[in-house]
Amino acid sequence: MKQQICILGSTGSIGTQALDVISQHPDLYEAYALTANRRWKELAAQARRFHPAAVVIADETFYEPLVKELADMPDVKVYCGSKALEEIVESPSIDMVLTAMVGYAGLAPTIHAVKAKKRICLANKETLVVAGELILQLAQQYHTPILPVDSEHSAIFQSLVGEDGNEIEKILLTCSGGPFRRFTHDQLKTVTAADALKHPTWDMGAKITIDSASLMNKGFEVIEAKWLFGVPADRIQVLVHPQSIVHSAVQFRDGGVKAQLGVPDMRLPIQYAFSFPKRLHLDGDRLDLFRQPLEFFEPDVEKFKCLAMAYEAINKGGNMPCIVNAANEIVNAGFRRGVCSFLAMGDIIEQTMQQVAFDSNPDYEVYVQTDAEARRVAQDIMNNQ
Amino acid sequence: MKQQICILGSTGSIGTQALDVISQHPDLYEAYALTANRRWKELAAQARRFHPAAVVIADETFYEPLVKELADMPDVKVYCGSKALEEIVESPSIDMVLTAMVGYAGLAPTIHAVKAKKRICLANKETLVVAGELILQLAQQYHTPILPVDSEHSAIFQSLVGEDGNEIEKILLTCSGGPFRRFTHDQLKTVTAADALKHPTWDMGAKITIDSASLMNKGFEVIEAKWLFGVPADRIQVLVHPQSIVHSAVQFRDGGVKAQLGVPDMRLPIQYAFSFPKRLHLDGDRLDLFRQPLEFFEPDVEKFKCLAMAYEAINKGGNMPCIVNAANEIVNAGFRRGVCSFLAMGDIIEQTMQQVAFDSNPDYEVYVQTDAEARRVAQDIMNNQ
Repeated sequence: MKQQICILGSTGSIGTQALDVISQHPDLYEAYALTANRRWKELAAQARRFHPAAVVIADETFYEPLVKELADMPDVKVYCGSKALEEIVESPSIDMVLTAMVGYAGLAPTIHAVKAKKRICLANKETLVVAGELILQLAQQYHTPILPVDSEHSAIFQSLVGEDGNEIEKILLTCSGGPFRRFTHDQLKTVTAADALKHPTWDMGAKITIDSASLMNKGFEVIEAKWLFGVPADRIQVLVHPQSIVHSAVQFRDGGVKAQLGVPDMRLPIQYAFSFPKRLHLDGDRLDLFRQPLEFFEPDVEKFKCLAMAYEAINKGGNMPCIVNAANEIVNAGFRRGVCSFLAMGDIIEQTMQQVAFDSNPDYEVYVQTDAEARRVAQDIMNNQ
Repeated sequence: MKQQICILGSTGSIGTQALDVISQHPDLYEAYALTANRRWKELAAQARRFHPAAVVIADETFYEPLVKELADMPDVKVYCGSKALEEIVESPSIDMVLTAMVGYAGLAPTIHAVKAKKRICLANKETLVVAGELILQLAQQYHTPILPVDSEHSAIFQSLVGEDGNEIEKILLTCSGGPFRRFTHDQLKTVTAADALKHPTWDMGAKITIDSASLMNKGFEVIEAKWLFGVPADRIQVLVHPQSIVHSAVQFRDGGVKAQLGVPDMRLPIQYAFSFPKRLHLDGDRLDLFRQPLEFFEPDVEKFKCLAMAYEAINKGGNMPCIVNAANEIVNAGFRRGVCSFLAMGDIIEQTMQQVAFDSNPDYEVYVQTDAEARRVAQDIMNNQ
């Protein structure tokens, strides 16, 4: 029996690499449903190649052209809208849902997939940043496995295999440091999105590339790790590791450290989330430790304020990470449009954290309200700076 | 119920560190039997501190003084001789046997312990070098677990936990490179045992320190890894890693590499062999990855011929590793006495391999004969050089 996979965000960087993994194991995996936000042409091309049972385009504007484009493929059902996203993940045929869309939009369909007891291959980290407590609670309640796809969290997960019950003393979360690692504060004043998009190591989407440059991505990963592995943030240490070879590590109570290493290739954590606990063959480069020394540095949270803000948010808890995520989506987009400077991003997030009402015990409705309010506040601050 | 431990070689480097581990967990472990070769005073002192049920001094010369020394401790039974070593490991009260003696002498008591179904915490690598096939066969037959105590093999073992059934693509066996790593061939001509004993990283006994300097120790570890993990030697790669932080690693078929890291502290693999699959708290320094970059180099088998000889021996199989081990014990002792030069060690081993009769399918008796014959041949060559 082939495993039926739903890919939320199939036209993005993770989505396309997941389809590559599926195409390498046609005997094991099948793309049951593919979804995209706006890129309907790529979605149609993927439908032609992978013959899913269904495709969903989130932005309804593109429903008509997509339907026309796939008119000769009556077996592929075409849906649109965010409601369809929530419904498609519940299809009884689906075994696994890869949440590879970007940002807050991943939250609602992930909740539906968790409730439908599908294996969650979690690439949408914002889901856990915004509502980690809620998601983990639901996963426990519905006995739904959540497997991380982020390379760092997959590395931690791989390091923890077979270590059940062995206390984690510390998580060592590695970080390439981004393209501005060696920049001075003065240099950071004038960097642009174009500078950031020359990211040195990983091939990623635009939003996450900016988050990587500001280290907000790493801050989100600290929050994600806290929820996935049940370790408080003060025992999650970020290490700048420019070579991106050690994908992360776990230190146990005996001082022993286990790490997962490899060339930077997102297909490995994607495939591992699909195949766990088995490992399948994966074509691609193998690690060559002779090439370069492996270096580790402490991150500079003065220069990269977003990382400090993420730690502050997770320590505060409640809806604070949700506020940071919403403000970040605004400033990230602002930076990409050239209306917000690199250094202003952290400042605006900080001010948004101060201005939006704190709720120490939010439910889903509070998250939705907080997200909307924080976006409004961050947008106001950005417009008036 | 406390686990009862027998330490073969309790006065050596591994033995004393094992007693330190036991003393840190008095609620879990008890030293049931301690043995030494000749250091009867240290053995008596350990008996006073740990109150074992029995002590064995292998060299019968020291039986009388040891008995006198412990006359006021009638609960500690005192034995002597190699036969007593073989019998003590079979005591019904014993749960685990740590084989921490040096050299070929570990073989016979290890076989007895395997047959008595005691958990083997294997620090005596010569046992597997000489007779790996036999030992593994017996372990399978008697359902006896063998847990490695060498830091490298413990690292591999730890990396494999929870990976049952996942094919090993390659073992990455790390190596400090020893004190002569940067020496030229000319410089190696005149190095002495005293130079080698300034080993940079690990605190070890004299024999293994010389083996580490010649890389014969690493060659033996390749052989040991082959038997412990069932991986052919051509898929075991030696990496010189001067920092001794990455203790070894495993590459799986998906290209993912798992490694165990830590400060150099033999107590961790000793304790892990005792506590597996659990991990216990261990006092001591924690890893600081900020201190230094981690470097990896290919070993130079032209300069360090012993490593090449070990690969040749394991590829040939049969009693060839037994020949190499015996010849190495002779030249290692000769180098320490100043009657054999550093470079001559590899040459004498090579000649011994050519002169002793090869047996492709040895049994225990053949091993015993091969060992005696190879020692005689190597000694002759050394005397006549």
